[in-house]
Amino acid sequence: MVTLAIVGATGAVGLEAIELLNERDTKFDNLRLFASKSSVGKIFIVKGELCVVEEYTSPSQFDDIDCAILATSAEISKEIINGHTKKKCVFIDNSSAFRMDKNVPLIVPEININTVGLSNVIANPNCSTIILLMALYPLHKENKIQHINVSTYQAASGGGLAAMKELKLQAESFAMGKEMCTDVFGRQYLFNAFSHNSEIDRESGYNGEEIKMINETHKILNDDDIDIDVTCIRIPTLRSHLESVTIKFSEPTSEEFIRNTLESAPGVTIRDDREKNAFPEPLVSTNQNNICVGRIRQSFRKDNTVFQLMISGDQLRKGAALNAIQIYECLSE
Amino acid sequence: MVTLAIVGATGAVGLEAIELLNERDTKFDNLRLFASKSSVGKIFIVKGELCVVEEYTSPSQFDDIDCAILATSAEISKEIINGHTKKKCVFIDNSSAFRMDKNVPLIVPEININTVGLSNVIANPNCSTIILLMALYPLHKENKIQHINVSTYQAASGGGLAAMKELKLQAESFAMGKEMCTDVFGRQYLFNAFSHNSEIDRESGYNGEEIKMINETHKILNDDDIDIDVTCIRIPTLRSHLESVTIKFSEPTSEEFIRNTLESAPGVTIRDDREKNAFPEPLVSTNQNNICVGRIRQSFRKDNTVFQLMISGDQLRKGAALNAIQIYECLSE
Repeated sequence: MVTLAIVGATGAVGLEAIELLNERDTKFDNLRLFASKSSVGKIFIVKGELCVVEEYTSPSQFDDIDCAILATSAEISKEIINGHTKKKCVFIDNSSAFRMDKNVPLIVPEININTVGLSNVIANPNCSTIILLMALYPLHKENKIQHINVSTYQAASGGGLAAMKELKLQAESFAMGKEMCTDVFGRQYLFNAFSHNSEIDRESGYNGEEIKMINETHKILNDDDIDIDVTCIRIPTLRSHLESVTIKFSEPTSEEFIRNTLESAPGVTIRDDREKNAFPEPLVSTNQNNICVGRIRQSFRKDNTVFQLMISGDQLRKGAALNAIQIYECLSE
Repeated sequence: MVTLAIVGATGAVGLEAIELLNERDTKFDNLRLFASKSSVGKIFIVKGELCVVEEYTSPSQFDDIDCAILATSAEISKEIINGHTKKKCVFIDNSSAFRMDKNVPLIVPEININTVGLSNVIANPNCSTIILLMALYPLHKENKIQHINVSTYQAASGGGLAAMKELKLQAESFAMGKEMCTDVFGRQYLFNAFSHNSEIDRESGYNGEEIKMINETHKILNDDDIDIDVTCIRIPTLRSHLESVTIKFSEPTSEEFIRNTLESAPGVTIRDDREKNAFPEPLVSTNQNNICVGRIRQSFRKDNTVFQLMISGDQLRKGAALNAIQIYECLSE
C-alpha cells in the first residue's frame, strides 16, 4: 500500500499536480493532500475518490507517508525535510531549498533519472531551467554545448495563484477604467514587463532566478564548463514561459540535425513553420505536457557552430508539477 | 518661410509627431498635415494654430514643401519620394523603403548626424535599432563592440494604432468574458507573446525585423564586422519596447566605466537600482524621450569583456517620431 502526499495542494503547482494525477496512470493506493489552515476541508475528487485537504502542522505527519511532493516555499520544505526524522518518506521538493545540496539529486527524468540514487530527498529544478534543458540536453548529448545565451519571457504563474489572479484583475480594472491593484509585484503588470522579481545579488547584479538557471544547468548536465549568459524577465502572460536562446556548440552542426534530433526527443514538440509564422508561444504551450521548440536557425553570420531557437513550456506542468510527478512515477516503477 | 509637412499624420507615429511639435521648440513657419481620404478634415491645434488634415493624392503636392516627415508605409514612401521630381523637398522617411540605399543616410542624430550630407532623402532607422544603439554607441565609441546578442520585447505600437487598439479591446473582451477579436495579428495577443510578425526569410529563418536590426546597426555604426545575434518577439505591451542585451567588447572594461559612460550619454537615463529592483520597464519609458538603461552587469562567468544590460524606450518617440523631428531640427539649425 503506497501513500502519496501533495503538500501545498491548493497552490498553483499543487492544483496542477492533482489535475495531472486525474489525467495520468500514476500508481498509488492512498492520496493525502496537505495545505495551510485556510484551505483545510477543501474537497477534491482524484481518480474517483474524495480527498479532503488536511492541515500541515508538523513534519511528523509524514511518518506514515511513502512519498510527498512538496509544492511549498523553501522555508516550509526545509522545515518538513529537516524535521522528518523517521527517514521513511521520500520527498520530491519543488522549492529551491535543496537543489544545490550535493547530496540531493536534481532531476529532470528525461535527462538524468540515472543519478537519482537512494536519497530520500529529490529536488525538482527551477521551471525556466527545466524548460531550457528539455530542448538543450538532446543536442548537448550529441554535440557539447559551450555557451548558452538565454533571455526569458516568464509568466505570472511563477509567482503563484496570487500573481495570476492579480494579472487577470488588472485586465478587468483596465477594462472598467478602475485603478489597478498592485499588491503582488508592486507595479502594473498588465501591458508591462520587468526584470524578474527574485532578489538581486548586490555584487554581481544577477537575480536569484538567473543564478538558479546557471547553477542548476551546470548540476543537471554535470558540466560546469558551459558558459551561460542569462536575463530573466517577467512578461504579462499567465502560465507558460517563453525563452529566446542562442547556443554555441563545440563542433559544426546544421539546422537539419538540430531539428531531427529534437523531433525524436522525449517531451518535445516542434512548431517551426516559417510560412505561417507559427512558432512557440505561451498560449500554444499552455496546458501542454511537452515543451515546444521552434525558430531553429543558424546564426545570421553563418557560423555553423552557433544556432538560435525559441522554446515555450507550461511553467506549472513540465516546469513544476509534471516533472515532480514524473520523478515519482520513475521511483514507483 | 519654411513649410514642414507630416504625412500619415493620423497614424500612431504621425500623432506622436504632432504631440512632439507641441512640446518642443522645433522651428517652422507653416505646418501641413497629410493623410489618406478617411482622415481628411480632422483638425489639430499645433502651437496655437488650427491645422486641417489634407488628403495625400500625389507626389506633386510636395513641390512647395521644404521638409516632409513621412510616417507612411514603405510603399507610399517610395511612391512619394520617387515621384517627387522637383527635388526641393527634403524627406525624412520613417519607413524601411530607403534605409539600406547607399545614397541615403540612415540617421540617429546623437550618433551620426555628421553623415547626413546633402541628400534630399534621410531615412529614420527601425525603432528597435534606434533604442539599441542609443545605449550601445556611446560604449562602442570608447571600446569597440565585437558581438551583440539581443532579444526584444516589442510593443503593439510597432503594428500601428490598430494593433494597440486590438490589444486593449482584447483586455476588455477578457474582462467581459467575450470572444476576442484577432484581426491584426491573427492570434490572441493579450497574455501571449510571439515571434515578430514581419515576414520570415525562408532560407535563413530570420524575420524582417531581425534582419533590419542587423543591417541597420552595421550601417549606422559604419562597421560591418560586429556580429549580431537577434531574436525579435512581440509581447503584450502598448508602446514601449524592452531589449535584453549581451555585449562583447574588444578590450576589458568595467561596470563602472559603462555606467559612467552612459550617465553622460545624450538621450539616455540610467535606472539601475538593485535594492529596489528598479530597472528599465516599458511603462517607465512610455511617453519619455530618453531611452532607459539598467541591469548593467558583468557576465556571471566574470569575463571582463562581456556585459549585460536591459534597455527600454518609447517606440513611438525615440523609436520613430522624436528621432525624425530631431533630424529635422538638426537640418533646420
